[in-house]
Amino acid sequence: MSDRIEEIRREEADAALGALYDDLRATLGVGWVAYACRVLATFDGWLPAAWAGVRPALSVPAAREAADAVRARARVAGAPAPPSLVPALRERGWDDARLDAARGALDALNHGNPWYLVLVTAWAEAIQGRGPAGADGATSEAPRGAPPELFMVDPASASPEVTALFERSGRLHFHHGPSSDYRVLAAWPDLLGLALDEVLEPVVRGPAYDATARELLVCARERVAALPAIDVAAVRVVERPTDLAALTGLLFMYQRFICDVTIDMIRVRDALG
Amino acid sequence: MSDRIEEIRREEADAALGALYDDLRATLGVGWVAYACRVLATFDGWLPAAWAGVRPALSVPAAREAADAVRARARVAGAPAPPSLVPALRERGWDDARLDAARGALDALNHGNPWYLVLVTAWAEAIQGRGPAGADGATSEAPRGAPPELFMVDPASASPEVTALFERSGRLHFHHGPSSDYRVLAAWPDLLGLALDEVLEPVVRGPAYDATARELLVCARERVAALPAIDVAAVRVVERPTDLAALTGLLFMYQRFICDVTIDMIRVRDALG
Repeated sequence: MSDRIEEIRREEADAALGALYDDLRATLGVGWVAYACRVLATFDGWLPAAWAGVRPALSVPAAREAADAVRARARVAGAPAPPSLVPALRERGWDDARLDAARGALDALNHGNPWYLVLVTAWAEAIQGRGPAGADGATSEAPRGAPPELFMVDPASASPEVTALFERSGRLHFHHGPSSDYRVLAAWPDLLGLALDEVLEPVVRGPAYDATARELLVCARERVAALPAIDVAAVRVVERPTDLAALTGLLFMYQRFICDVTIDMIRVRDALG
Repeated sequence: MSDRIEEIRREEADAALGALYDDLRATLGVGWVAYACRVLATFDGWLPAAWAGVRPALSVPAAREAADAVRARARVAGAPAPPSLVPALRERGWDDARLDAARGALDALNHGNPWYLVLVTAWAEAIQGRGPAGADGATSEAPRGAPPELFMVDPASASPEVTALFERSGRLHFHHGPSSDYRVLAAWPDLLGLALDEVLEPVVRGPAYDATARELLVCARERVAALPAIDVAAVRVVERPTDLAALTGLLFMYQRFICDVTIDMIRVRDALG
């Protein structure tokens, strides 16, 4: 029995997987390798083929526009804007530098989450046999380049305070483990605690939140359907008979998981002014 | 590369799995073994432990009440009732006997789908480490008994007409394959085609439909949280390191898949008067 779902982090990756992680970050222009990708990397042979199968489609302007469209829809419609957390953080001794560091990390997360929703949606549709028909003629953009890598707290060695915050977030969202985003925010446990109290708990898994998550999913699907052709066969290459089921389920789950986290982090960023 | 997610059907099961399938049907009182269970059975060793881990909790009156509560919420709120399909079926030569056979199959599906949502929700929560705390003192009901087994069309040998209907339903729902329910309805391709045209396509994956699916999920979670204790460790026993991720993803997916199918089949039954 494993206690935790296995993943392969950048520092644990062999040379080939490390190069794939770096290429993925540079192609999408994102500051971390998503939890979904780190878990999918544990299925022998799948990630290299699947990444090669979608990489060209994600290199065109329409992919960037898809991520932008998701990002633009990620505020919870019908819910009041979150309160500012700045006064409470100031009371806890936060100075401008610390506030700016947290804002910078959130900006990086908010840039990347919609990209990962597009990537995982492309894989999820392809593994179910529904790759985009292929809008031909689009040419690739210049490589987007990898921003600096975000620091994450490792759940295996987190403090009891952070572990309790991770568990609380999991119960609140009905998630199976802490997303990369929560591991990044855990560098500031007081911010993470306040964000759960004031910004997230009042809305997460309520009807308006779930309706917003649904909108992101629908938006991502529509945009992915209009991308250049994806190599569906490459995404469906598996080594063991059970892997097709496993990957279908995991992609379905992470697609929805990323919708939630996308909403959360934009909301937390709004609360930092 | 597999073309299709593997599953083990009753007639393919060895003696031990066949006995488990029969016990599952008799314990819940349902007329088929769910697609989710047939796929989960392909993960060596998992289903026997996981079924033993939830069986006592599903034998109490509160489990039946949970299924009843799900069933009572499964009509799409805010959508008009579906039109009657009876005149169009009569035009196609349907007599009372055929109508009653289809109604009987739908009644059996509508009895069982909420049970499977409760079962898969119990597993999904447990594998994520959130088993019910355990409402003690409840005693098991008498075994509910297995109704006659429903006949399903095998997708591997379906007619081109039925294959096209299965694919259409998959695209419409964003599902990875035809549920048991669709395989049952496929015994009457003209009914399945009319149901897609008139009853399902106007609502499936729209905002009101997705909000109803969300209500079923929330209802099932709340009811499961109030059941007697589940053996979480038994549900988390896996043989291979990747299986914990695989099963977490699959349970997450089938939980939502069953919500959709529950709504669909009650709507189709309503259209048969």
